[in-house]
Amino acid sequence: MNSRLRSFGIAGSGTYLPRHQVTIDALAELTGVTPESIRKAYGITKRHWADAQETSSAMGAYAAQEALEQAGWRAEDLDVLIGACGVMEQPIPGTSVLIQRRLGIGDSGIPAFDINATCLSFMVAFDRVLAGFALGEWRRALIVCADIASAALDFSKPEASLLFGDGAAAIALEADGPHRRLAYRFATFGNGADACRLEAGGTRLRPHEDLEGFLAHSRFAMDGRAVFRASGQRFPEFLARLLADSGIDTEALDLVIPHQASGAALEHLKRSIPGGHVKTIDIYADIGNQIATSLPFALHHARQQGRIKSGETTLMIGSSAGISLGGAVIRW
Amino acid sequence: MNSRLRSFGIAGSGTYLPRHQVTIDALAELTGVTPESIRKAYGITKRHWADAQETSSAMGAYAAQEALEQAGWRAEDLDVLIGACGVMEQPIPGTSVLIQRRLGIGDSGIPAFDINATCLSFMVAFDRVLAGFALGEWRRALIVCADIASAALDFSKPEASLLFGDGAAAIALEADGPHRRLAYRFATFGNGADACRLEAGGTRLRPHEDLEGFLAHSRFAMDGRAVFRASGQRFPEFLARLLADSGIDTEALDLVIPHQASGAALEHLKRSIPGGHVKTIDIYADIGNQIATSLPFALHHARQQGRIKSGETTLMIGSSAGISLGGAVIRW
Repeated sequence: MNSRLRSFGIAGSGTYLPRHQVTIDALAELTGVTPESIRKAYGITKRHWADAQETSSAMGAYAAQEALEQAGWRAEDLDVLIGACGVMEQPIPGTSVLIQRRLGIGDSGIPAFDINATCLSFMVAFDRVLAGFALGEWRRALIVCADIASAALDFSKPEASLLFGDGAAAIALEADGPHRRLAYRFATFGNGADACRLEAGGTRLRPHEDLEGFLAHSRFAMDGRAVFRASGQRFPEFLARLLADSGIDTEALDLVIPHQASGAALEHLKRSIPGGHVKTIDIYADIGNQIATSLPFALHHARQQGRIKSGETTLMIGSSAGISLGGAVIRW
Repeated sequence: MNSRLRSFGIAGSGTYLPRHQVTIDALAELTGVTPESIRKAYGITKRHWADAQETSSAMGAYAAQEALEQAGWRAEDLDVLIGACGVMEQPIPGTSVLIQRRLGIGDSGIPAFDINATCLSFMVAFDRVLAGFALGEWRRALIVCADIASAALDFSKPEASLLFGDGAAAIALEADGPHRRLAYRFATFGNGADACRLEAGGTRLRPHEDLEGFLAHSRFAMDGRAVFRASGQRFPEFLARLLADSGIDTEALDLVIPHQASGAALEHLKRSIPGGHVKTIDIYADIGNQIATSLPFALHHARQQGRIKSGETTLMIGSSAGISLGGAVIRW
């Protein structure tokens, strides 16, 4: 076993999917890829993109409210609220704070802060919450993820734009619940930092000094081969070590909840796990890669589908810009 | 006492200050405030602003290297690297990842992620590191803060622009050291979210859809009265509860290391603590408010000045956009 064994409960979960559905035909027009190819080669049936009212914090607050209702908690009962978005709604203040205000607890003093590891932000936030539970610091935590990938897509690059969908997900976690995280691993390989990047929006590129340069880097860029070098090649060993830490054989996994990175990545993952095609939560066709929101969205989906069963074992796994790999093995 | 008692050591610390010094005369020209008023009313002697080479990750890596050298650690020895910047260098991937690469450990797999609570990012990251130490998850952690406030200042608002300076700071922390954090509090009041804000750079405002709107919100804005309502009024009770948790009287504090929010905020703080004018680390005149970097920068300064003494007690305290209040009481 290992030092990352933690107990917890999921008191509730919620999601929000933007109202606006983008059809295959609309995606085809934007990208120049044929509708047939979008369906077959990309494995996409539709996308949901946020409108102007569906900000990150608005969607996050909807998902949070659903999770709180399911938990039977009032927002006032929270010990901590963590934002775990891939990209924040605005640089200052963090999205967690904006969500706190939308939940009507903006005078409560309940701690709100953000954790970022791009697509694995939820995995890291979850780990830090479980640490807080183990130490008795918190008993009720809410992690909220909300992402609007459609804000910065480059449709001249179908392979880097068709993947993504928008949305939000929230998980209400409680200490001393029936679940056990048996193992956790997180590994970062910064030499792959250029493989997935959105460069404009921070302190380096400044619209007032060089507007053209700013705009030229204001859409998400991905180098598929570099992603594979940085993460795909390392994945088998990473997974083997995670499972070894957990004491669980690959065959003994009952369910796999992956980050919905891409159709190809999901296919690759399914093939690498015995029975993977049956065991893996795959909502990619309709929902897409929602950056940090993907993992908790898929977890919520699994709960709704009745696929989280007491005593069974789930692998949560994913990769993120960084490049990082992250995974957890959970016994429900 | 309380459940936040933690032990740790500081193995090393480092800072980086941009090469370019901005004179009083240059600040006067930018803001229209007289040089005399900048010196007297604002209490400023100079500012340091980053040039194009001095990116957040470049400055952060310099500070990190100094901290590692002082610790006698190789970068490879780290168990975790946390970026705790007020605003990231770019939205994807996080600044921690870019710093990992610059430290030459971009193939190491050492976990790198970011924590954000604007000016209190270091305080929250420090808390999460101490949790990791207490659970035996990590033994050597590096927290790196780097901020370039000058990237987004509105000089037509002297009271919201003169405050700030750029720079970076890194603290190398180890488990089981001689120091004790006696108490920790962090409180967020999201109803003050509009008091300090930088709106452009995330998922909400989109340069491709509304460039004018984007640019109009691409500089930091502050409403001094709203800041006071959200944080100043709550500060006395917050401090009293923090000190009560620690079991330390205000009079017994040997040193105060505050976030260098503004000259007025520092003056207010000094007056609220017996002997505050002697006990408080104040580098505001030369260094300014470096957002998240301020607290660890002031901590490094205190170490260099020989003001961290075994057995003595220090209050670390600050406020951030959010509005959040954060504080820790440390027995060295």
